[in-house]
Amino acid sequence: MAGSTFGSIFRVTTWGESHGKGIGVTVDGCPAGIFLDEDDIQAYLNRRKPGQSRFATARQEEDQAEILSGVFEGKTTGTPIAIMVRNKDQRSRDYHNIMDVYRPGHGDYGYEAKYGIRDYRGGGRSSARETIGRVAAGAVAVRLLSCFGIEVAAYTKSIGDIEIDPQRFDWEERERNPLYMPDREAAQEAARYLETLMAEQDSAGGVVECTISGVPAGVGEPVFDKLDACLAKGILSIGAVKGFEVGDGFSAARSKGSENNDVFYTDGDGKVKKRTNHSGGILGGISDGGQIVFRAAFKPTPSIARRQQTVNRVGENVEIAIHGRHDPIVVPRAVVVVEAMAALTVADLLLAHRNSRVEW
Amino acid sequence: MAGSTFGSIFRVTTWGESHGKGIGVTVDGCPAGIFLDEDDIQAYLNRRKPGQSRFATARQEEDQAEILSGVFEGKTTGTPIAIMVRNKDQRSRDYHNIMDVYRPGHGDYGYEAKYGIRDYRGGGRSSARETIGRVAAGAVAVRLLSCFGIEVAAYTKSIGDIEIDPQRFDWEERERNPLYMPDREAAQEAARYLETLMAEQDSAGGVVECTISGVPAGVGEPVFDKLDACLAKGILSIGAVKGFEVGDGFSAARSKGSENNDVFYTDGDGKVKKRTNHSGGILGGISDGGQIVFRAAFKPTPSIARRQQTVNRVGENVEIAIHGRHDPIVVPRAVVVVEAMAALTVADLLLAHRNSRVEW
Amino acid sequence: MAGSTFGSIFRVTTWGESHGKGIGVTVDGCPAGIFLDEDDIQAYLNRRKPGQSRFATARQEEDQAEILSGVFEGKTTGTPIAIMVRNKDQRSRDYHNIMDVYRPGHGDYGYEAKYGIRDYRGGGRSSARETIGRVAAGAVAVRLLSCFGIEVAAYTKSIGDIEIDPQRFDWEERERNPLYMPDREAAQEAARYLETLMAEQDSAGGVVECTISGVPAGVGEPVFDKLDACLAKGILSIGAVKGFEVGDGFSAARSKGSENNDVFYTDGDGKVKKRTNHSGGILGGISDGGQIVFRAAFKPTPSIARRQQTVNRVGENVEIAIHGRHDPIVVPRAVVVVEAMAALTVADLLLAHRNSRVEW
Amino acid sequence: MAGSTFGSIFRVTTWGESHGKGIGVTVDGCPAGIFLDEDDIQAYLNRRKPGQSRFATARQEEDQAEILSGVFEGKTTGTPIAIMVRNKDQRSRDYHNIMDVYRPGHGDYGYEAKYGIRDYRGGGRSSARETIGRVAAGAVAVRLLSCFGIEVAAYTKSIGDIEIDPQRFDWEERERNPLYMPDREAAQEAARYLETLMAEQDSAGGVVECTISGVPAGVGEPVFDKLDACLAKGILSIGAVKGFEVGDGFSAARSKGSENNDVFYTDGDGKVKKRTNHSGGILGGISDGGQIVFRAAFKPTPSIARRQQTVNRVGENVEIAIHGRHDPIVVPRAVVVVEAMAALTVADLLLAHRNSRVEW
Repeated sequence: MAGSTFGSIFRVTTWGESHGKGIGVTVDGCPAGIFLDEDDIQAYLNRRKPGQSRFATARQEEDQAEILSGVFEGKTTGTPIAIMVRNKDQRSRDYHNIMDVYRPGHGDYGYEAKYGIRDYRGGGRSSARETIGRVAAGAVAVRLLSCFGIEVAAYTKSIGDIEIDPQRFDWEERERNPLYMPDREAAQEAARYLETLMAEQDSAGGVVECTISGVPAGVGEPVFDKLDACLAKGILSIGAVKGFEVGDGFSAARSKGSENNDVFYTDGDGKVKKRTNHSGGILGGISDGGQIVFRAAFKPTPSIARRQQTVNRVGENVEIAIHGRHDPIVVPRAVVVVEAMAALTVADLLLAHRNSRVEW
Repeated sequence: MAGSTFGSIFRVTTWGESHGKGIGVTVDGCPAGIFLDEDDIQAYLNRRKPGQSRFATARQEEDQAEILSGVFEGKTTGTPIAIMVRNKDQRSRDYHNIMDVYRPGHGDYGYEAKYGIRDYRGGGRSSARETIGRVAAGAVAVRLLSCFGIEVAAYTKSIGDIEIDPQRFDWEERERNPLYMPDREAAQEAARYLETLMAEQDSAGGVVECTISGVPAGVGEPVFDKLDACLAKGILSIGAVKGFEVGDGFSAARSKGSENNDVFYTDGDGKVKKRTNHSGGILGGISDGGQIVFRAAFKPTPSIARRQQTVNRVGENVEIAIHGRHDPIVVPRAVVVVEAMAALTVADLLLAHRNSRVEW
Repeated sequence: MAGSTFGSIFRVTTWGESHGKGIGVTVDGCPAGIFLDEDDIQAYLNRRKPGQSRFATARQEEDQAEILSGVFEGKTTGTPIAIMVRNKDQRSRDYHNIMDVYRPGHGDYGYEAKYGIRDYRGGGRSSARETIGRVAAGAVAVRLLSCFGIEVAAYTKSIGDIEIDPQRFDWEERERNPLYMPDREAAQEAARYLETLMAEQDSAGGVVECTISGVPAGVGEPVFDKLDACLAKGILSIGAVKGFEVGDGFSAARSKGSENNDVFYTDGDGKVKKRTNHSGGILGGISDGGQIVFRAAFKPTPSIARRQQTVNRVGENVEIAIHGRHDPIVVPRAVVVVEAMAALTVADLLLAHRNSRVEW
Repeated sequence: MAGSTFGSIFRVTTWGESHGKGIGVTVDGCPAGIFLDEDDIQAYLNRRKPGQSRFATARQEEDQAEILSGVFEGKTTGTPIAIMVRNKDQRSRDYHNIMDVYRPGHGDYGYEAKYGIRDYRGGGRSSARETIGRVAAGAVAVRLLSCFGIEVAAYTKSIGDIEIDPQRFDWEERERNPLYMPDREAAQEAARYLETLMAEQDSAGGVVECTISGVPAGVGEPVFDKLDACLAKGILSIGAVKGFEVGDGFSAARSKGSENNDVFYTDGDGKVKKRTNHSGGILGGISDGGQIVFRAAFKPTPSIARRQQTVNRVGENVEIAIHGRHDPIVVPRAVVVVEAMAALTVADLLLAHRNSRVEW
């Protein structure tokens, strides 16, 4: 209940603060016999590392994953997989100017109201470093899903008002530009936009789109643990996310039934397919066999260097300027976090689904 | 895990199908000593009853709530509160034409893929009647929240492209029109739009907006059980919802940090307030003391009378026309369901929050 | 957390008080496709009915089970199975003499300290009628287990100091005598003992032994959800149980390693067997392929007609005599409750076990 | 569900194997503001360390606790407390002679049947080293309970047939002898008994008794999460435990109601007390304000140096002699593990209890 656990069967528990000794995660409930080593984890962690482009904080975080348990001779044993990343470049002195001030757009005030305590060394549990645990666990989930032919892939769909053009969609381009946009032109335009904002000591938001392929029809539990409901929880639990939609999402609210219903058809091979995918692969909360597609809206990074008005802990109106090293946009580094949460969600519901019937 | 339970401390478990013997819910974990009687429940159930306007199915459902346990001498006892509504007007014959066919836009296909069984008597657990359990439990949560000065109120924000005008916002108007829109002109326009669609045997979607007032700063758990993440799950678990956003939501993704950050200020009374509410009352997943505001996007009712192409259970391409009694739009009746899920979510996290510290 | 839910995957939630409108249970997570009807439930409920012998309260409780959901055309659908028994013979007037008094040996005082409320109409949730929900759900679990060849059977092992003689053990005798003892002589002796106690307005305790056959090796989860730990919780959750032991139990504490270790052997067929079963079929918390055997110690019925000293709600020392209809011993009627809790526990862990590996 | 998590509100998740990189635990849900440092943890861990007497394995385990998160400036922050102990003296070569053999009395066979994998480096998750995580978390729970005036204390009640004499009971003696017996004479007799067994390459079992003082009436949840049921689960989850009883336990089954009921009385100060404590401080699953007393039966250490018959992984009858370093009895070192599980259980239910009412 205290919020650091995600999932019921494939169950993930994270710990750690941005400026403590490290960040870690325990994955309990991963079936035995899956090939897994530290490189699998590290490859995912590297994708969220800062310091890799001019649009990400210059902090050098090594983020070296260590598997502490649950893997023997290269395979999962069925027992808890503990993974830890030691914090190295902590520099908590950067934060001393904000230790008695509630940063606008941050959780400082709510945290202090909740716990009666101020961990001023950066965001603590609300820091983006907390996502290391998610990504490490997500890498394990990805390995599990691959045993079932399921793949998760996300990308930056838009930054500010600049959106990728479906005509120019190119998966390979995603890895080539620092913004994780699968459209070279859009990425270039977005880069120019971000440079303007950086010059203005400001920040941008954006939208991440995620696809999940290979999920068989039938995954998701009726009523409260619907596949889309669980995805929504996982995605909204990422720090800066303010919105979630599946399939046509908010556009569906402006559509008509005759347009929004996906027509089922068959090619005579007994397989049930859909001519369109307005549903985003989920109907009635259960996968319909189509590709799952959802989007997450990220707000602009709240830490901006510009002077801002706020209140301090003794209740005075004050001004602050946040001088730490902060990304002008969280979206590119958040792409892998979105994938991780999607993988964790599907892994959990996929295992649950195996008990839908006595025999298969 | 099988999905019929919501919440950890204020824990709700629902049961029942549209065409079975009834629908029910058990609320476990409601503190003792709260005034509660069947009228409190009934008042909420009446708001979701069909047959109340020309925009809702003509089915006459009495939906009479019976409290079976957990209340003694007008007060909750701390033990499980069981509430049941017997199904009366079942008319399962209406559905015989669709018993071997996968209805487009419905969960039929996924359910059968999951369980290997077809309950053809209507949607079963994916029917809108399932929400009776949510609303009954939500009414209990509302009673609990009122002990803490918290109020939940939702309304129809838009139907198709017709949106309420903030300038004309009028809470009282919400109860006066059958569409639950707090704007008389928009309601009239939307009514005309719906009549056109009904003539065309089509259906519409819309957006519900919900506000929660009186939540103190500090509610919500870090990381996975953030207040907005839990709200998202609760709201996406409602049948036809395809999107969720809190505060500025998807618009925040197009904003800048300097615009989106809410400035904190104080009037010198030691209270921390915000000049704007782009956050929707939640920062870092924890309530910030401001009014909580979120929106849910509902897709158009998938059951439309118009002929549609689809596939039947033996794998043939067929045409169907769904002749049952169906709402041309689910939004007005869903408003109270949104309120119920919001109340259940906040009730659970509010009780969890009481253990954030040893002493208060 | 509020305690009315048992199990994680095969998840049971009960509700109801002894003198309210009824008692019920919801089973969520039962796989689809299992044959089930009301007679399966009723057969189990009949075994715990009062009024069937001179050693059980003369109350006539019909305890008619009604399945409200989750079963269609004689099979489980995968959705929640709700079962209800209406209370009929409530006679709450019997309890008026004890409404302001804390009955010795009962939970009255603790309940009032907890909730600040006194439901004086009998034990409320701590009444033996609460077990109706357990038994109804247990009957469903028994059906599930039978699909896997697993059988649960319990009996009265001792009443007071009178214990069955292993030499005279006779399963069929169990059904023939009202004490559920599989030893005719012991049953006769115990009956005489109980008659003496009844004449003295006193009550007896006893021990129930339970066997579970057909559980494959590997069921149970390491560390906290060990098979014996989960059984212990399930059994100790039955009202009057004060002790639990598996295999040799407390005797093992007086044994030596060389005696207590069960020797593994094989007949050359590759099957691993044990020459003895000191472990009671569970090693390291995981089933070892042998028969599971455990015992539960029941205290004497606390409600006795004899005068007792106690304290009333205003804090005065008083005398009471409890005149209601009470069993002089709970053990014979509790046998089926023990079976039910054992079945629920194994069902849950058996389903969990299916996810121990990716492939089987 | 996979079994490495204990508790719902004060929630503990452990990880680690005997011969992996270390053992750890995450405590989520500990309220903020409790004084805690590594010495608090270390003091508890030291009590379970091997190598401290001739009755415990000669392995030198340093078991140095490191708090990785959740504590800031000497106080808990409300976020997860991660604690790790690195494994140092692993010597996995000791186990090579048993890597293909199922050790009698151990979980080897069940684990392999479950996961299809053999971690032959010692017991893995079923090793006694796994209890490090429990004890570290238990130390945190003890700190929380001390804020409420609750104390947990256990001791060795018997070893083999040698039991402490209540007349000679001496708390201080408990710390003076290596067997943790609060009776000097019994400890000396037990030491002689153990020496005899060691000479015979054999091992002994015993009983631990635990008292919990200061628990107010009202703790424990009705029905399934009764205080004694949760204690039973926690205690049976300790590796070698085969039995649990509360209060008079199995003796209560031979008692009469008139003897077993504890008489309530008051001294006129409004406080409700009991003249006896047959209930062990728990009635109807809820604390009755008296001291809580329970006992755990431990089987003899299964690892004995004596030759034993068994089966190997290819299905042959073989003989083994286990040459590793093993305690001739687990009881003395298990005393602190029993305290830890008791503290974890009460901490969780105490926090849950705070939501029994809206106001206190």
